[in-house]
Amino acid sequence: MTPLSLAIVGYGKIARDQHHPAIDQHDGFTLSAIASRNGHVDGLPHFESLEALLESDEAIDAVSLCAPPSVRFEQAMAAMRAGKHVMLEKPPGATLSEIEILKAFAERQGVTLFASWHSREAPGVARARAWLADKTVTGMHIEWKEDVTKWHPGQSWIWQAGGLGVFDPGINALSIMTEILPMDVYLHASTLVFPANTQAPIAASLTFKDLGEHTLSAEFDWRQQGDELWNITIETDHGTLALSKGGSQLHIDGEQMLEQDEREYPGLYQRFFELIERGECDVDVRPLRHVADAFMLGERTTVEAFHDPAV
Amino acid sequence: MTPLSLAIVGYGKIARDQHHPAIDQHDGFTLSAIASRNGHVDGLPHFESLEALLESDEAIDAVSLCAPPSVRFEQAMAAMRAGKHVMLEKPPGATLSEIEILKAFAERQGVTLFASWHSREAPGVARARAWLADKTVTGMHIEWKEDVTKWHPGQSWIWQAGGLGVFDPGINALSIMTEILPMDVYLHASTLVFPANTQAPIAASLTFKDLGEHTLSAEFDWRQQGDELWNITIETDHGTLALSKGGSQLHIDGEQMLEQDEREYPGLYQRFFELIERGECDVDVRPLRHVADAFMLGERTTVEAFHDPAV
Repeated sequence: MTPLSLAIVGYGKIARDQHHPAIDQHDGFTLSAIASRNGHVDGLPHFESLEALLESDEAIDAVSLCAPPSVRFEQAMAAMRAGKHVMLEKPPGATLSEIEILKAFAERQGVTLFASWHSREAPGVARARAWLADKTVTGMHIEWKEDVTKWHPGQSWIWQAGGLGVFDPGINALSIMTEILPMDVYLHASTLVFPANTQAPIAASLTFKDLGEHTLSAEFDWRQQGDELWNITIETDHGTLALSKGGSQLHIDGEQMLEQDEREYPGLYQRFFELIERGECDVDVRPLRHVADAFMLGERTTVEAFHDPAV
Repeated sequence: MTPLSLAIVGYGKIARDQHHPAIDQHDGFTLSAIASRNGHVDGLPHFESLEALLESDEAIDAVSLCAPPSVRFEQAMAAMRAGKHVMLEKPPGATLSEIEILKAFAERQGVTLFASWHSREAPGVARARAWLADKTVTGMHIEWKEDVTKWHPGQSWIWQAGGLGVFDPGINALSIMTEILPMDVYLHASTLVFPANTQAPIAASLTFKDLGEHTLSAEFDWRQQGDELWNITIETDHGTLALSKGGSQLHIDGEQMLEQDEREYPGLYQRFFELIERGECDVDVRPLRHVADAFMLGERTTVEAFHDPAV
């Protein structure tokens, strides 16, 4: 079978570090073009914008959208209008409503729309999901803490309205949570910590409820000093499961079950390929819905201004 | 046919002023009990809580939940577990996620769940929807401005986190908007105005987009002096439609098409009755989804503290 011809739209850090190598590794895709204002790849056709690419003679089957969420909707609509399959970086949009419109349009156009959540491809996630499937969860604690100056230097858009702030990494934890928990949960309370000079929170505490009387909590913090903590601990009627290092390490009752290097993006492109082959979509809005709920329900506190040393 | 036996849960101002008279007017329902901490009705069995009602011998077919949204989820689950049909005052919940859980549970239980939006029953709404159905909308402006001290005296919960603030009335406009517009829209930008001492906004400006390049805007304000303004103006390729007085007056190109006294709650109970008869649910989350989007995307500004003269 001829590989599918794919273009990356928005060739920034995540595209260069993660998407490009993952596409190169996958036999089912050939990276054929780049549409990006600033990013270039030697030897590949370059377009200033997705619109310019779609108007060109370049034969493209699919696009991977890596630009910030605020422009993702219009790019996804344009690509699907032109009959292209679309993979969305996370989060799949700036609002929940636009994602509903995208889903409906993908079905009408008969193209694959894949709202990717890269953390779900972490090595321990599938196994955690399988182990939890027949357990009763009695407690959960997520701690997702990292140093924003290390992971997002100079990224001013994450601090603007709609930039989501600490939920940008926190949504990764929520994407794992919604993937592995064997029951539905809903947000019960949230506290959002806003620096005095930003429109997005630097920290957040969430409490979820399920249909039992269990305490399920999540702490997101961008003020972490030193090593990042990306841990999810889940207590059940049959022992405690711990995913750590963002899901690349799995312990059950203290015993290490798995530790692997992460291969998240190769996993995503394999999933995208399978969805295209089967003519299906995969658009799970639950992680972003929890974030929207957290903003709507959130108690706001203000802390000292944040100054990015990289700016 | 024997009327359905119905209980009101949460007998406060809206239940007394609107629900109770509407139920009395409907041949299909008999108001059989009240579950409410404070509210009583002479001659009707009274219970301290929904739980106490459900544990009693009182034969109830359906409940109408009028307590604040923060407790609605657990009440709705308890009632549906006991096999009762459920009508929810607006908004149907404190979070979007809990409404998804309710929907799934209603279908599993085979009971009717009706997330009511009373403003959709305003006299001009059905006709506006019918008139707009075959038009192309080229613009929209919503202005929903009222004096909070007149309409919500002493209601402290509306100012707390999750209380929604000015979106409490604003969501009425959004419920009409989503009912009558012939196309999907998504939030493009929002500004939220918070008093320095509250957790909920006193004003909000929203801009929506559709798939064309039209400007669709909404202004919600609780600082209105004098008469309230509850107006929706929609420009189309075939003239301008104006719903005013909350939807009880309809003009097309300046010509008055309709002015009727509002009968919103009788309309809701008729709809609830029909849904039960047909064994259906009606849970449209779009108005609340736009509100959640507005909180997630919103640019925040702070204004002087608000002091409720009634407190």
